[in-house]
Amino acid sequence: MPDIAVETLHRLAVDLLESVGTTPETAEIVANSLTNANLAGHDSHGVLRLPSYLEGVRQGHIDPTAAAHLVSASGATAIVDAEHGWGQPAMWLATRAAVERAREFGLGAAVVHNSYHIGRVAPYVEWIAGEGMIGMAMANAAPAVAPFGGRARVMGTNPIAWAVPRAAGLPPVSLDVATAGIAEGKLRVARAKGFPVPAGNVVDREGRPTTEPADFYAGGALVPFGAHKGSGFSLLAQFIGRGLAGMDPSSYDGPRGVNGPFVLAIDVARFTDSDHFRAEVEAQCDAVTCCPPAEGVDAVLLPGQPELATRATREREGVPVAETTWAELVALAKERDVAIEP
Amino acid sequence: MPDIAVETLHRLAVDLLESVGTTPETAEIVANSLTNANLAGHDSHGVLRLPSYLEGVRQGHIDPTAAAHLVSASGATAIVDAEHGWGQPAMWLATRAAVERAREFGLGAAVVHNSYHIGRVAPYVEWIAGEGMIGMAMANAAPAVAPFGGRARVMGTNPIAWAVPRAAGLPPVSLDVATAGIAEGKLRVARAKGFPVPAGNVVDREGRPTTEPADFYAGGALVPFGAHKGSGFSLLAQFIGRGLAGMDPSSYDGPRGVNGPFVLAIDVARFTDSDHFRAEVEAQCDAVTCCPPAEGVDAVLLPGQPELATRATREREGVPVAETTWAELVALAKERDVAIEP
Repeated sequence: MPDIAVETLHRLAVDLLESVGTTPETAEIVANSLTNANLAGHDSHGVLRLPSYLEGVRQGHIDPTAAAHLVSASGATAIVDAEHGWGQPAMWLATRAAVERAREFGLGAAVVHNSYHIGRVAPYVEWIAGEGMIGMAMANAAPAVAPFGGRARVMGTNPIAWAVPRAAGLPPVSLDVATAGIAEGKLRVARAKGFPVPAGNVVDREGRPTTEPADFYAGGALVPFGAHKGSGFSLLAQFIGRGLAGMDPSSYDGPRGVNGPFVLAIDVARFTDSDHFRAEVEAQCDAVTCCPPAEGVDAVLLPGQPELATRATREREGVPVAETTWAELVALAKERDVAIEP
Repeated sequence: MPDIAVETLHRLAVDLLESVGTTPETAEIVANSLTNANLAGHDSHGVLRLPSYLEGVRQGHIDPTAAAHLVSASGATAIVDAEHGWGQPAMWLATRAAVERAREFGLGAAVVHNSYHIGRVAPYVEWIAGEGMIGMAMANAAPAVAPFGGRARVMGTNPIAWAVPRAAGLPPVSLDVATAGIAEGKLRVARAKGFPVPAGNVVDREGRPTTEPADFYAGGALVPFGAHKGSGFSLLAQFIGRGLAGMDPSSYDGPRGVNGPFVLAIDVARFTDSDHFRAEVEAQCDAVTCCPPAEGVDAVLLPGQPELATRATREREGVPVAETTWAELVALAKERDVAIEP
């Protein structure tokens, strides 16, 4: 695996996105989403998405020139339309709208219609936390996951994320998880390498538990994390994404919509003194990080801490990009007449 | 196990609560919380709580005459103070305030300070769904659960619940789960009966996985559901309960507070036509209930459907009350000079 400097990946992403008609400003936003995911160690949402993003443009599923806009704002709520353009700028517009509403009303929420992939969700809720608020977000996605007890694809891998502000100068506590036991991207990697996946994450088309990744692609389904409880959380994102954000998974075959996102900001200052809140968060963080570890565990971490550690390493040493991904990106750059600058 | 008519349990609960100075109106609300939990099949939140509720009054942790009140309402937010009285009427006040705010602003949220046990959470969010809104609620609680990878009690069993309105005439889809793998009440039952608990739910005081319920009471801890993901959801309820609702678990030893609750209402009508939303929910419900079941499963159910089935049976046939619980209730009734009417 070559280690590629994040600046190189970012430049490449911007150039490729601009090469299909994306404006420089939007290309910057989408490239940030991808390279930030790589830095956080979530390569499934990183630059490996570029080939499918550009293929989406080629097939007419994405309009790279579309500009997301605010459809309406009413009280604490707002509606954004991505106009079948890139999902990330639309989700940023929704996130800023949620914070603006929350500044005025104490709470703010926004949905995005007609959205392509919004990328990793953590950056949106972390930005909300940076504004001194609690951020929460969720989205539905293309059917891939069976509900608890089922064997057919009924729900997406439906991410749910939250972030909470810490004391001044510290990055927020931040959780961003797929409600499937494992991400589809990990199945893809396991299949390519001929490895099994951990038990309890996939059923085959007959509904039998399996560790063979190919069984998923032969009509099987992913399984939610946390049995009926995780399945329930996934279903909430499904109802909200479909019902409020208008992302109907049954029409996904012509994938002009990928995510149905909902973002919520809660202004801490409406409920309590902000410094008091941050002090209580710190006390709770201490309780977690000072917790004696269970057998076989080195240390207890806060949500988001593994990502911060990976970020520090990768900013210094570069991003390890899988050979196949790198080869695809090099080919794409050649095809689009884009130079790769080391 | 005797099957006791729910009316008998309800009358007994009201009479016992009134016998310690609770007003008839409040006694009715608390008794409803307990007997509704029994009807739903969640006996851990049912009438078995009455002895500890009354013991809480005797020890001065609960003021049975206190009346919860609205401290403030600002924009889409509200703060309720339970004044160390019963938690249920305070949580109902918060729930109604959240819906009122949401009616005005599209979103509404409320927290409760100084709250004793709020009981099972589902009824609050189901009531919000009955108002045509999406309801969400969470609360922190006394330390019992180790964070993912830890072995000490840092978080509560922290319930998270949501409910979504269905088509007219149908009860809402409703999820109400502890973020621990299993409830402490189930450990208590297993210990009494000498049974092991399912693997993966408890660590002993050294952080070793165990199925022996006594290991929890000897300084062990419960484990979150769904590994780091469930642990993360629990931690969100912990931050919000502690930071916004003022329930600091480290001061729990004098348990004048039990839950730090937060409730949120999202007015569907601000985002889309309500009938359209309900139709999309029905389509998604059909996708779940028509999902072919996995191996060994009879049918795929929606969250809340098992509870509805249990309710139908228990309304008809009575509530099976454990012998030990029934004996305690009979003794308590005798002590408080309360008649048990069959």
